[in-house]
Amino acid sequence: MNGKIEVGILGATGTVGQRFIQLLEDHPWFTATWLAASDRSAGKPYREATSWQLEGAPPAGAADLKVEECVPGRGPRVVFSSMASSLAGDIEREFAQAGHIVISNSGHYRMDPYVPLLIPEINPDHLGLLPIQRREHGWEGAIVTNPNCAAITVVMALAPLKPFGLRKAVVTTFQAVSGAGYPGVPSLDILGNVVPYIGGEEEKVETEPAKILGTLDGEIGTIVPLPFAVSATCTRVPAIDGHLVTISVEFGRKVSREEILEALAGFRGVPQERDLPSAPRRPVHVMEAPDRPQTRKDAGLERGMAASVGRLRPCIILHWKLVALSHNTLRGAAGAAVLNAELMKSEGLL
Amino acid sequence: MNGKIEVGILGATGTVGQRFIQLLEDHPWFTATWLAASDRSAGKPYREATSWQLEGAPPAGAADLKVEECVPGRGPRVVFSSMASSLAGDIEREFAQAGHIVISNSGHYRMDPYVPLLIPEINPDHLGLLPIQRREHGWEGAIVTNPNCAAITVVMALAPLKPFGLRKAVVTTFQAVSGAGYPGVPSLDILGNVVPYIGGEEEKVETEPAKILGTLDGEIGTIVPLPFAVSATCTRVPAIDGHLVTISVEFGRKVSREEILEALAGFRGVPQERDLPSAPRRPVHVMEAPDRPQTRKDAGLERGMAASVGRLRPCIILHWKLVALSHNTLRGAAGAAVLNAELMKSEGLL
Amino acid sequence: MNGKIEVGILGATGTVGQRFIQLLEDHPWFTATWLAASDRSAGKPYREATSWQLEGAPPAGAADLKVEECVPGRGPRVVFSSMASSLAGDIEREFAQAGHIVISNSGHYRMDPYVPLLIPEINPDHLGLLPIQRREHGWEGAIVTNPNCAAITVVMALAPLKPFGLRKAVVTTFQAVSGAGYPGVPSLDILGNVVPYIGGEEEKVETEPAKILGTLDGEIGTIVPLPFAVSATCTRVPAIDGHLVTISVEFGRKVSREEILEALAGFRGVPQERDLPSAPRRPVHVMEAPDRPQTRKDAGLERGMAASVGRLRPCIILHWKLVALSHNTLRGAAGAAVLNAELMKSEGLL
Amino acid sequence: MNGKIEVGILGATGTVGQRFIQLLEDHPWFTATWLAASDRSAGKPYREATSWQLEGAPPAGAADLKVEECVPGRGPRVVFSSMASSLAGDIEREFAQAGHIVISNSGHYRMDPYVPLLIPEINPDHLGLLPIQRREHGWEGAIVTNPNCAAITVVMALAPLKPFGLRKAVVTTFQAVSGAGYPGVPSLDILGNVVPYIGGEEEKVETEPAKILGTLDGEIGTIVPLPFAVSATCTRVPAIDGHLVTISVEFGRKVSREEILEALAGFRGVPQERDLPSAPRRPVHVMEAPDRPQTRKDAGLERGMAASVGRLRPCIILHWKLVALSHNTLRGAAGAAVLNAELMKSEGLL
Repeated sequence: MNGKIEVGILGATGTVGQRFIQLLEDHPWFTATWLAASDRSAGKPYREATSWQLEGAPPAGAADLKVEECVPGRGPRVVFSSMASSLAGDIEREFAQAGHIVISNSGHYRMDPYVPLLIPEINPDHLGLLPIQRREHGWEGAIVTNPNCAAITVVMALAPLKPFGLRKAVVTTFQAVSGAGYPGVPSLDILGNVVPYIGGEEEKVETEPAKILGTLDGEIGTIVPLPFAVSATCTRVPAIDGHLVTISVEFGRKVSREEILEALAGFRGVPQERDLPSAPRRPVHVMEAPDRPQTRKDAGLERGMAASVGRLRPCIILHWKLVALSHNTLRGAAGAAVLNAELMKSEGLL
Repeated sequence: MNGKIEVGILGATGTVGQRFIQLLEDHPWFTATWLAASDRSAGKPYREATSWQLEGAPPAGAADLKVEECVPGRGPRVVFSSMASSLAGDIEREFAQAGHIVISNSGHYRMDPYVPLLIPEINPDHLGLLPIQRREHGWEGAIVTNPNCAAITVVMALAPLKPFGLRKAVVTTFQAVSGAGYPGVPSLDILGNVVPYIGGEEEKVETEPAKILGTLDGEIGTIVPLPFAVSATCTRVPAIDGHLVTISVEFGRKVSREEILEALAGFRGVPQERDLPSAPRRPVHVMEAPDRPQTRKDAGLERGMAASVGRLRPCIILHWKLVALSHNTLRGAAGAAVLNAELMKSEGLL
Repeated sequence: MNGKIEVGILGATGTVGQRFIQLLEDHPWFTATWLAASDRSAGKPYREATSWQLEGAPPAGAADLKVEECVPGRGPRVVFSSMASSLAGDIEREFAQAGHIVISNSGHYRMDPYVPLLIPEINPDHLGLLPIQRREHGWEGAIVTNPNCAAITVVMALAPLKPFGLRKAVVTTFQAVSGAGYPGVPSLDILGNVVPYIGGEEEKVETEPAKILGTLDGEIGTIVPLPFAVSATCTRVPAIDGHLVTISVEFGRKVSREEILEALAGFRGVPQERDLPSAPRRPVHVMEAPDRPQTRKDAGLERGMAASVGRLRPCIILHWKLVALSHNTLRGAAGAAVLNAELMKSEGLL
Repeated sequence: MNGKIEVGILGATGTVGQRFIQLLEDHPWFTATWLAASDRSAGKPYREATSWQLEGAPPAGAADLKVEECVPGRGPRVVFSSMASSLAGDIEREFAQAGHIVISNSGHYRMDPYVPLLIPEINPDHLGLLPIQRREHGWEGAIVTNPNCAAITVVMALAPLKPFGLRKAVVTTFQAVSGAGYPGVPSLDILGNVVPYIGGEEEKVETEPAKILGTLDGEIGTIVPLPFAVSATCTRVPAIDGHLVTISVEFGRKVSREEILEALAGFRGVPQERDLPSAPRRPVHVMEAPDRPQTRKDAGLERGMAASVGRLRPCIILHWKLVALSHNTLRGAAGAAVLNAELMKSEGLL
């Protein structure tokens, strides 16, 4: 394996699982050697078990792997998980109990007080929860999560502005269909249409940012959330990849356009300092054209790992308005988890 | 003409002009006998001068009419106008000076202090501006306007709630491509995409509601706007017809869900009382399904003249959140103007 | 019931079932009083049992009907069926055995030698199969079918040309997503995409035309198919309603453009003679514009019951090329079945 | 310039021009140093002169270049051209007269008897026309063209089958909107729609293959076309990139499925032998899944330079049916021209 770390994938046949396989195909540090999925798929070669949605066909390395059952202890120590949330509660816990490091894209454990909701550029220190997690949950291994794919767009755009005192944000999302997986959104529901509702999504977009932007308090042994109120409306639009959000935000003090633009454009974090393999050069791109970012044209920036922000202008009700975008299955799912793994490796945690 | 009132159409070859022709085809009160457009089209039969975007082919009655130049004094006394805003300033004024009643969908005169920005269900009394308009502008005829196609969605949803004290609203629009006319939005810009910018649109959505919901003060001779602040983000989405908006709204007092639903569902106005030909039975439909209204499925309600509202729920920043929808070329353009004309006829003003 | 004939609907909750309910809402002859569907839906009010895809909400008359199980003998004598083909074989037969007249949109019995594959404008005499069907199958009632939704587009365009001797046709279809029902085609498979395959469809498009255009031979007691070879490629495109086909056709003799256009435009049948309620005035519209018919703009012609044809031009390999379009859930499904029922009523067969 | 060949681009601001810039950004052999466009754009920095349709923003190297006028003699000796066909006739001739090597994507000179219509895998020997071209046209420089973007899909799929004797093909195309440039196809014409007509396209698809597949006859000094008849119907569909075609083809002899599949999968040419920088490893990919190739998912194979073929099955009218796909602005336009330039460089012609 050329000294690469072997990893497994739980939920390898879904749309996020496919992205994991694509991202790990030529990864310098990791190699996916164990693909697991629901009982229905287990036993088939991967190429037959999945309905490949990405370009061409599954990579040769994965295509012929036999899909395994999700049984703890069998696969490599490090596993990525894109299990459906309904299954993730039990399965991810069992894997963590059995000593696996579970780097999860599922929703189930994100708000668990002892589980990091990690964005490496923003809160790498939240990995400090892991010893507490082991103690409190009694797990041999660990679970680390990345945020919901729409919450991540909001947080990528606002984290650089945290020094100005984030108070309130009214948010409307425009979410691409790949966020719903496969078969996911029926075409009759979305062609030429907007569906102004995504079950359970608004709660995630409203609650996850405060935890992500919060502070690890070693004494009380958990994250103290930022007192930042988000009011969200989540919608589905006929785009393939990319969640765009409109944001009206209020700060703790008066902030100038220049301060905001400087904070966004200058934003860097640990992944950039350490030049992690999946890190974008610039986590946030400020778009100059008055009509950008646009979902189809800009979601892929820096291999889908950079968020983009544009249309900064005053809001007469809160303080400033802007538009943000990030790629929901890369920066918002599989890419987020891979970057989390890279951060953990660079910290000696894998 | 069976006693019908003859009307002309300025800008008959555009997408809104086509809707005028479609709506007037079998109208019980009006008949379109004079179609005018830019010099380029003038002289051609209508069927050749227009790129018909609606079903089938232009109605027989219009197809063979010769397209006229926009010269005041030549056509009928009553003219509908869907001129491009850049031309409407001069042409509509010249028609009004020459004695025409111009019922306009153009943006140019909407915020003129003496021009009604009319929605018959909401501010029919603003027609009281007409004598003042004649005096102040020295026009023989008159200009009456309807709102911008996105502003109208916002106002249809919020006007029934005016008794609760409208204070502030944060609004994001999802606008269909027919709002940009033809050729309008290039397909490369919108297929599978969201464009978070429409030139000049946000200002209209922010300023028109206060005038529409304002009060005619006969003494000072103009409309006193409602002190209602709107902050808008306007976007274009890949839908054909229908402008959907997400709204967070703050009232002057605490309001219950029941009060709001009752106000919306019970909303009626002069068009319903007088049973005007284009009036919907119910101007606002409250949708019960959690994922409605949806652009493609619901924009056509009551021949595109009814707005629909759904997803009423509390907002943790302002008071309530909801989603509204109306048809941008019917209730938001040609249908709006025809309903304005019907109101004026019922008032003896035509 | 105002003397209307009561009818039932098998498969009332699917997309074609919804169209049946919409078409029968104000039908002058029929009234839908009995809605049946799979066990899963049975017992619920219709409004809850279906995911309504059409405008607004289910009609008041149907919304509160309790969905019944598909049990023969319980509902009215006349039933429309839009059962999934996999279930239709047993259920439709049981209903026919029990004395019901089953007017079916399902694929199962279309090629049965004793079942009419009926298009009222084209082969109304195929109803002469019914006595033979009763005798051969031993059914009290009967089954009458309408063609596959793509086959019908081909046949509507070519039947008027049968006098010229239809020999061969190479056909490519562009089929809308509503043809696949709900949830049907996943949006990830069709947004911005073309899928050049629809399971089982090409065989139907290749075999049904010869039967539809065939001759009832009373002596041998079945339909003698027309010796007409069709080679089809069937594809799915991102359109909501309307199946468009490109056709290259070879005739038994040399035919001029004028002969073809005259035959198409002049085509009429029994439904037009008898002015059946759902009959279009003209079954085939010849489009003059060089770029019509177009799926979204023209599928709805004459309430979706007229086919349209355009782009007639010579083919250097076969004889002539043209493009045809019809609405797949109206002329190609629910509307087809309703028109079949109207024909049968006008023949005294209901 | 690191020893790279400097090249210019005529028509640099259009959608194909943008692709040229993208492809040349890191090209190992060529560097774009001179961008020319219509008078309207000349003098502006490239970033302002173009409406960038591709990801992010124009590459840094091009963004600040001043757009030049299309004046022969001013730019580098080698120029790529994506001029509008209406302008290409004069401008490309003037450049060739002035000594430039014009590698053109325009339609104007494709059928000129002395101009190669080049696909490096198929007819590299047609470059032998160049001395004849110089003699006959009296040009110092030269013009080399690549085929129309839909014709190229047909030819990529059929050239490997030439040994079986190509006789006839009935073809229907499904063409993406990027093929029409920018602003190109209005969204109102294509969202949820199919437009069964593209002006001038069918003639190109019918005539170019015979020349491409023809033989250079040195004696008569031109290409003898292959006696291969193509009948085409060209349509526009709502996809961004990728032209898909359905083909029914007749050969000069009976051919088995295995022979065809082997010929397609084994097809290689000079670009593969010489490992040209833009050459795909395999010019034609045979897709095994029954529903591939699909426009959105497969057009990008091998950076958009590989065609894909699937659905091989017998045709009851001609011999075999198949579906083919290639990327219209890469393999079908800018990428084709760059590969032509690479072939010419490898032949010592630049």
